[in-house]
Amino acid sequence: MAERNLTMMTDLYQLTMMYGHFLNQTNEEAVFDLFFRKPSGNSTYAVMAGLDQAIDYIKNITFTEDDIAYLRSLHLFSDAFLDMLRHLTFTGDLYAIPEGTPVFPGEPLLRIKAPIIEAQLVETALLTIINHQTLIATKASRVCYAAGDKDNVTEFGLRRAQGPDAGIYGARAAVIGGCNGTSNVMTGQLFDIPVKGTHGHSWVMAFDSELEAFRAYARAYPDTCLLLVDTYDSLRQGVPNAITVFQELRAQGHKPMGIRLDSGDLAYISKKARAMLDEAGFEDAIIFASSDLDEETIYDLRNQGARIDVWGVGTKLITSENAPSLGGVYKLSALERDGKMMPRIKLSDNVAKITNPGYKKVLRIYDATGKRALADLICLEHEQYDATKPLTIFDPEETWKKTTLTNYTLRELLVPVFVRGKQVYQSPCLQEIRAYAKREIATLWDEYKRLRKPHIYKVDLSQELYDLKEKMIEEQRG
Amino acid sequence: MAERNLTMMTDLYQLTMMYGHFLNQTNEEAVFDLFFRKPSGNSTYAVMAGLDQAIDYIKNITFTEDDIAYLRSLHLFSDAFLDMLRHLTFTGDLYAIPEGTPVFPGEPLLRIKAPIIEAQLVETALLTIINHQTLIATKASRVCYAAGDKDNVTEFGLRRAQGPDAGIYGARAAVIGGCNGTSNVMTGQLFDIPVKGTHGHSWVMAFDSELEAFRAYARAYPDTCLLLVDTYDSLRQGVPNAITVFQELRAQGHKPMGIRLDSGDLAYISKKARAMLDEAGFEDAIIFASSDLDEETIYDLRNQGARIDVWGVGTKLITSENAPSLGGVYKLSALERDGKMMPRIKLSDNVAKITNPGYKKVLRIYDATGKRALADLICLEHEQYDATKPLTIFDPEETWKKTTLTNYTLRELLVPVFVRGKQVYQSPCLQEIRAYAKREIATLWDEYKRLRKPHIYKVDLSQELYDLKEKMIEEQRG
Repeated sequence: MAERNLTMMTDLYQLTMMYGHFLNQTNEEAVFDLFFRKPSGNSTYAVMAGLDQAIDYIKNITFTEDDIAYLRSLHLFSDAFLDMLRHLTFTGDLYAIPEGTPVFPGEPLLRIKAPIIEAQLVETALLTIINHQTLIATKASRVCYAAGDKDNVTEFGLRRAQGPDAGIYGARAAVIGGCNGTSNVMTGQLFDIPVKGTHGHSWVMAFDSELEAFRAYARAYPDTCLLLVDTYDSLRQGVPNAITVFQELRAQGHKPMGIRLDSGDLAYISKKARAMLDEAGFEDAIIFASSDLDEETIYDLRNQGARIDVWGVGTKLITSENAPSLGGVYKLSALERDGKMMPRIKLSDNVAKITNPGYKKVLRIYDATGKRALADLICLEHEQYDATKPLTIFDPEETWKKTTLTNYTLRELLVPVFVRGKQVYQSPCLQEIRAYAKREIATLWDEYKRLRKPHIYKVDLSQELYDLKEKMIEEQRG
Repeated sequence: MAERNLTMMTDLYQLTMMYGHFLNQTNEEAVFDLFFRKPSGNSTYAVMAGLDQAIDYIKNITFTEDDIAYLRSLHLFSDAFLDMLRHLTFTGDLYAIPEGTPVFPGEPLLRIKAPIIEAQLVETALLTIINHQTLIATKASRVCYAAGDKDNVTEFGLRRAQGPDAGIYGARAAVIGGCNGTSNVMTGQLFDIPVKGTHGHSWVMAFDSELEAFRAYARAYPDTCLLLVDTYDSLRQGVPNAITVFQELRAQGHKPMGIRLDSGDLAYISKKARAMLDEAGFEDAIIFASSDLDEETIYDLRNQGARIDVWGVGTKLITSENAPSLGGVYKLSALERDGKMMPRIKLSDNVAKITNPGYKKVLRIYDATGKRALADLICLEHEQYDATKPLTIFDPEETWKKTTLTNYTLRELLVPVFVRGKQVYQSPCLQEIRAYAKREIATLWDEYKRLRKPHIYKVDLSQELYDLKEKMIEEQRG
């Protein structure tokens, strides 16, 4: 899968713009930022994901002869341009914020500096990959937070995913966001993460009775027996039948794993089922629950004392149902002319849509221990900060809101991934990314993670960037 | 892409159930129906899509040696089972409703009859593929209906799709649902459909002025010049600059194509821009509009007299934003024992979730001309109907609601695709599927297609199926 060639997975207008630059001989070095203006749903942050697949995409850029023939058939491009495409690879720089990092509006998640013909080509695929995985990692982070951050959420949504990749890479992203594993065997295999699952309703229906089905399943998995109890009636049939089979397993020296609930009121049924299992001496048997769950339902069920140990979350996680897209954009921020960066800005009647001009970096400001994130600062690449000196930051919209920090540490979030076309970064394995994400998300106060109406994390502009932006707005409007 | 091996893209529980059946030697012939209970969003129908990729999936089922090694590493399966997997292919029957057909709740879109070990394996991938493409084809059908069904909607959403496949196959599905093309070059190449696009904001920002950018674009595409006018200010800068360049093109003997609006109030701006273009003698220049469009916004803009000729629909179509999943399920409906079909039923406290038992087919009842669909009838496979005789159908929930039809034609919707593992069906090309979909969607009364609160199309059960279902519910509850 890693070797998939997605070069042609781009919007036609990238190719027409590339051709325009080719004809006009305006293939200057351009700087593009990939960022979002608003996190998805109610979240105030997003969890960066998808970089590993973005790297694969960049590495595999090649127009095949079939591609060239197809493009020729469109009668839009000259032979000279098509010849150029034959040899096109990515020769630029790509900086990125590592996967698993909490990220905020306006921050370049990727910063590309490349001849504009290359930089345009990669726009669409980079957006597709980063938008998707960041969306799902963020949703998973919210769901896991609602479940108490106890490594007790499993991703279960493949059948409702928006196609194979959405299932495969969505599950990968869900693990970055905190899920402890997935039902998706291919994701487990590709990324070496736990796969989970037992049996479905069809198993029970394939036998003449539920009890017979449970016994057959227990014979196959005597030591990991987890039984789905809702095919006919959870409390009147399913749980009693499961207990019968668990007693038989116990008599044979096996320890049953537990039951799965998949319908009905999960607060009520889980409490009743817990009592029945305890009564029969199966205090260690877990209760696994699924059924259209999301962060809000999990939060409410927990507050009502539901006795659920592990949550299987499917459709609403794998599609990020309440907000199924992250609106990441890819905007030109500078052109390099004669070795000098010429900042660029996009105006809009909507202030939030005005871009931050220039060749930029992102600093995260932590407290002295490095355990709490205090604010982020977007500044120009050449700016230097000395963390031994006080730092005054201000809100770029309400500029009278100022804070002076004295006891802090700084971290640059963007790291080099490709330098002059050469890959200089290797992605950590998925379990490492997950562990890193867990640590970094823990640096955010709970106030930023509240499910509803969370507090907004500060993302400020440096004085120099702020002044540049104001000046450019004035110039453009004038 | 067609040769992708997705065998491992399944839920782990399929493999654990398969192993259970293998151990228990209960590999009976089983019948499964893939159906949905409720269409997505406000729609009363869905547009079947994804069969072509489902066929590719089935054809390419093979566990590689790497897959077997991975599965062995899970310590869940015996060597004998893993050996069996090495040789496993799909040897069963698959019947399907052709792509582009409007379909309704409860109707088997796919009917699989195969040894249960094979039938379980394919469940997840079939659901992923059919759920996704049917979702997007349906959404596209709604969007195109709102735009007046004038072949004037282009799919534009790749960058916000849930990963590469969601973009590639989502665009395919959007064309089935009625879109006239896509911005996605790979989809255009794979399925031989029109690709569309001109330039983005970054083109304009890469030049020192908008006018210079427009002139450079016009030099590249003098005969298909469509200019994006909102980078700085649509009405005060963009449209006047476009008109300047159009006049220059006209002086050189070229005919400009038109402008694209991408922000601001599209009703207001399109009317003003139309007047400005007309005033300058460019009555034929089209106005293309994009900007977070969906069926409801398009409907409202048209009702307010917006002068928009072509609609570019992105995020909200490619993700089906208001309802980003179709809840298709895959349920056991019968087991074959000693050559006899033994129907199976899944109960639920929720009546709508009780399955239809037995080996079934779907009949569509049209009027005598075949131009209007009157109702659908789900019945048992062996039932025969004679369209020269009156047919009485009844509502399966409110059984006193009866209709007797006299002047009608019948069509069986499920067609054989694989018979005993052999492919017997070839998908038409995408443009043929699109043309078929257009004809079939036109057989539905407008009342079923209304954007809000549409009328519900009749899907009835035959008397024999109804009686079987009632009897089985009684037996299970007894």
